[in-house]
Amino acid sequence: MDLEQVRAWAREAGAIALRSYQSVEARRKPDRSYVTAADEAIEHLLHMRIRAAYPDHGILGEEGVNHHTDAEWLWAIDPIDGTGMFVSGLPIWGISIGLLHQGRPVLGCFYMPVLDEWYEVDQQGPALFNGQPIEVLRDGLLDSESWICVPSNIHRRYEVRYPGKVRSLGSMAAYVCYVARGIAVGALVGRPKLWDIAAGLAILERAGGEARLLQSHALLDPRQMLQGTPAPEPLVVGAPEAVQMLLEHITLRR
Amino acid sequence: MDLEQVRAWAREAGAIALRSYQSVEARRKPDRSYVTAADEAIEHLLHMRIRAAYPDHGILGEEGVNHHTDAEWLWAIDPIDGTGMFVSGLPIWGISIGLLHQGRPVLGCFYMPVLDEWYEVDQQGPALFNGQPIEVLRDGLLDSESWICVPSNIHRRYEVRYPGKVRSLGSMAAYVCYVARGIAVGALVGRPKLWDIAAGLAILERAGGEARLLQSHALLDPRQMLQGTPAPEPLVVGAPEAVQMLLEHITLRR
Repeated sequence: MDLEQVRAWAREAGAIALRSYQSVEARRKPDRSYVTAADEAIEHLLHMRIRAAYPDHGILGEEGVNHHTDAEWLWAIDPIDGTGMFVSGLPIWGISIGLLHQGRPVLGCFYMPVLDEWYEVDQQGPALFNGQPIEVLRDGLLDSESWICVPSNIHRRYEVRYPGKVRSLGSMAAYVCYVARGIAVGALVGRPKLWDIAAGLAILERAGGEARLLQSHALLDPRQMLQGTPAPEPLVVGAPEAVQMLLEHITLRR
Repeated sequence: MDLEQVRAWAREAGAIALRSYQSVEARRKPDRSYVTAADEAIEHLLHMRIRAAYPDHGILGEEGVNHHTDAEWLWAIDPIDGTGMFVSGLPIWGISIGLLHQGRPVLGCFYMPVLDEWYEVDQQGPALFNGQPIEVLRDGLLDSESWICVPSNIHRRYEVRYPGKVRSLGSMAAYVCYVARGIAVGALVGRPKLWDIAAGLAILERAGGEARLLQSHALLDPRQMLQGTPAPEPLVVGAPEAVQMLLEHITLRR
């Protein structure tokens, strides 16, 4: 599996999204969240490209593409992760393309077109941000200027006693990549689907991070999410010591 | 006072900041927050430009430039609003240049160099985003997909019962501009200094918005902040009806 090829798909997808950026018209899905013509066009494009290159691979996509999800190799794609930000005309969104082998994320590409930022990993090399190796943060985890990513419903759903800052930035894939890049101490991610985080998880793990469930503290097993079901609990993501610290500082509100 | 000239200063300042973006070295100020060589170089530059163009005007700057702050015309400048984001290598920060006449914000320019976004107003025209007139949001204020900007210490300092989303994005000036642009319903801003919001307030008011104090519900009077003292209480910003709604939904934690 060739990262250069995946990068070309992502670049093509980004060009589609940029055409409507800052003049987006959005529709509502049954859960009231937004979907745009760009989400659908990109998912269609990626579906075609993957089917042509790897006819025996499976595909799981946010906007309903489902193809052989029990295949040995499964692509999990989010055409635009951060659709709400995209609709608002803010820059933090991107195309997320992850590949799982027997339920384990092994390759990932998250591309943020407005910023021309690339977060990537393949089956051999280090996790990369714009071509440079990255690692999760292990120092200053409780510094007053350090920060964690939190969901946009933090004010209603969570009690957070973390002494640093919280940032709510609108893209789950970006959250996991910011942690992998070592700029965020960690992230709290509220019950993602596989397409939100498959690319991010592959990048995160190679950068030295892990993902655990908020309540049971177990490591996330992506095999539970292969049919498009959400993670069984909210996730906490970071270096193992950061995850440990965050599990002690974050609880669900009653 | 000429917006074209202010824009030229901001562009010059942005070029300085972009030279170190994503490779920033930061120092700590006594309050532990960050300052960078770019903050200082930009404040020095703007100070020189303003002194040369308007020798009898006052200047109030984040990094300590204070010059005739009791003058009839006062420039309030934040060389980099969102220094924390700048240090992290995230794109949401900018150069904020506001002008007050007898304590009332009358001209503002907020420039976000990474995104090439311009928020502006002069003494005559409408509030502008990238040259297009903007207005605050008045509909869908309680929609589940609508959002407000909140401070990075929301998890410790505030109780927020708002039914939509919260975003913590790291720049007070950007918050006020996102409200003026009509993409955020409103913003909660924790006790800003004048340089953080002078440009934003000028833009916001022309876009139909207002700023009130969280506890007393009084309109903000920027004349209380002319010596660099923080706003007497946290602020709530938005269309008048959005501010009213937010004042009912947000309280300080004990």
